[in-house]
Amino acid sequence: MPILNKDMQVCISLAGHPSNLGTRFHNFLYDELGLNFIYKAFTTDDVEGAVRGIRALGIRGCSVSMPFKEAVIPLVDVIEDSAAAIESVNTIVNDDGVLTASNTDYEAIAGLIAEHSLDPASRVLVRGSGGMANAVVAAFRAAGFDDVTVLARNAAAGPALAAKYGYAWVADEPAADDPARVFDVIVNVTPLGMQGADASALAFSLELIAAASVVFDVVAFPAETPLIVAARAAGQTVISGAEVHAMQAAAQFERYTGVSITPEQIARAAAFSRAE
Amino acid sequence: MPILNKDMQVCISLAGHPSNLGTRFHNFLYDELGLNFIYKAFTTDDVEGAVRGIRALGIRGCSVSMPFKEAVIPLVDVIEDSAAAIESVNTIVNDDGVLTASNTDYEAIAGLIAEHSLDPASRVLVRGSGGMANAVVAAFRAAGFDDVTVLARNAAAGPALAAKYGYAWVADEPAADDPARVFDVIVNVTPLGMQGADASALAFSLELIAAASVVFDVVAFPAETPLIVAARAAGQTVISGAEVHAMQAAAQFERYTGVSITPEQIARAAAFSRAE
Repeated sequence: MPILNKDMQVCISLAGHPSNLGTRFHNFLYDELGLNFIYKAFTTDDVEGAVRGIRALGIRGCSVSMPFKEAVIPLVDVIEDSAAAIESVNTIVNDDGVLTASNTDYEAIAGLIAEHSLDPASRVLVRGSGGMANAVVAAFRAAGFDDVTVLARNAAAGPALAAKYGYAWVADEPAADDPARVFDVIVNVTPLGMQGADASALAFSLELIAAASVVFDVVAFPAETPLIVAARAAGQTVISGAEVHAMQAAAQFERYTGVSITPEQIARAAAFSRAE
Repeated sequence: MPILNKDMQVCISLAGHPSNLGTRFHNFLYDELGLNFIYKAFTTDDVEGAVRGIRALGIRGCSVSMPFKEAVIPLVDVIEDSAAAIESVNTIVNDDGVLTASNTDYEAIAGLIAEHSLDPASRVLVRGSGGMANAVVAAFRAAGFDDVTVLARNAAAGPALAAKYGYAWVADEPAADDPARVFDVIVNVTPLGMQGADASALAFSLELIAAASVVFDVVAFPAETPLIVAARAAGQTVISGAEVHAMQAAAQFERYTGVSITPEQIARAAAFSRAE
């Protein structure tokens, strides 16, 4: 246990169901880099009061998770493009009372599309229609992908998300004999495979996984979802939610502290954040 | 540096000019006792927003210092007698959204009057007329002292404080040949002798110190004020602000954590809080 001091800068997170990932990721790097910061996860039933508290207490930064990503928009002063584009905030930085909101999830997904050199001519299937699915679809649109299909049971949110970016929508996974079934990149942005009730669920059929060349699962915990395990077994290129989480957390870290970190430091912090 | 976790309970302080005393005192004991708590000092220019943040973030406890001790009264739900009696709060405990305010400074002073077996027949001189002086005067009244004089330059606050408890007021220290000069207990509740601009000031004349039998200085930092040094040199019984601070911090600790601590633990935490 450290000895805390009055001058430490404090960063927090707000989530409906906090995990330990952010708290461990950020504090690991504060320690390694000798920064006078602490990070602590919180939940709240009064997001307006929580943001007022951030201002009143001079809290330096705040990670925002479900279900607060839209609710904080009217509570901040500046909205960066990454958050404005998808009307969803996951990061607030407090500069002497001026709160600036951004979305490092969106930035991380865009970064991973570029890092893995995904081909804009690919046929892409994105499963999900929530806020994170919006970030994924927007990132594919911004990267120049024209052939994206949104797969979502929700007959309101699904078509709305697809239409917003000029993409197609389907309610169900195409049948195995459907020629529309050939997707190069398949992306899960639902809780299927996430720790909890849906932990054993596979987000896509094995046929779809076999037909793809890239399988991208945005679920961050566990790192090895059933989808990731099946994709590795099929020999496909895998992009995991663990990568998304590490990259977005690193972007938050740099915004909060002003300190740049290396890929090796990000990898060690990410490994530590999961090693409990 | 520790690895913090999402489940830690958080206690804070609010002060116009935070010191490290509370942060070091509480975290030392959390560590020693293995409690999953952290404590961090804050300042604010929006005390209402800060208290709203305490509620919204579920912060477990808050120490309240100058200049917020009266301002928080309308912001809490329950006022205990120790705070109501002197209209001054130094402690807020948050039980699932119900904020209860108390004044452990008052309790500590009352405790020290009892612990040092001060005689209610003593003649007492209290210098000061602020919130803490009010706590001191109220504690003497509650302990049955009838002969107390308030010494305060402030011609509004001084007489008002004295009158509130049925005591006398003087604007200046009685002259050396004044028979009213004989005080058994002299108490400083001004910033004279406190670290900063008044660090070298002696709150009472050497004659008054020599005539007393008990010298009580409420200044908490440094532990050895000029008044305490002079009183020790004169062989008088000394009660220091360091004792007040340790005792009130221990009372806060027990309220926040529900864990009782021994005098030895209090002494070690107090020593640690000053050893930087």
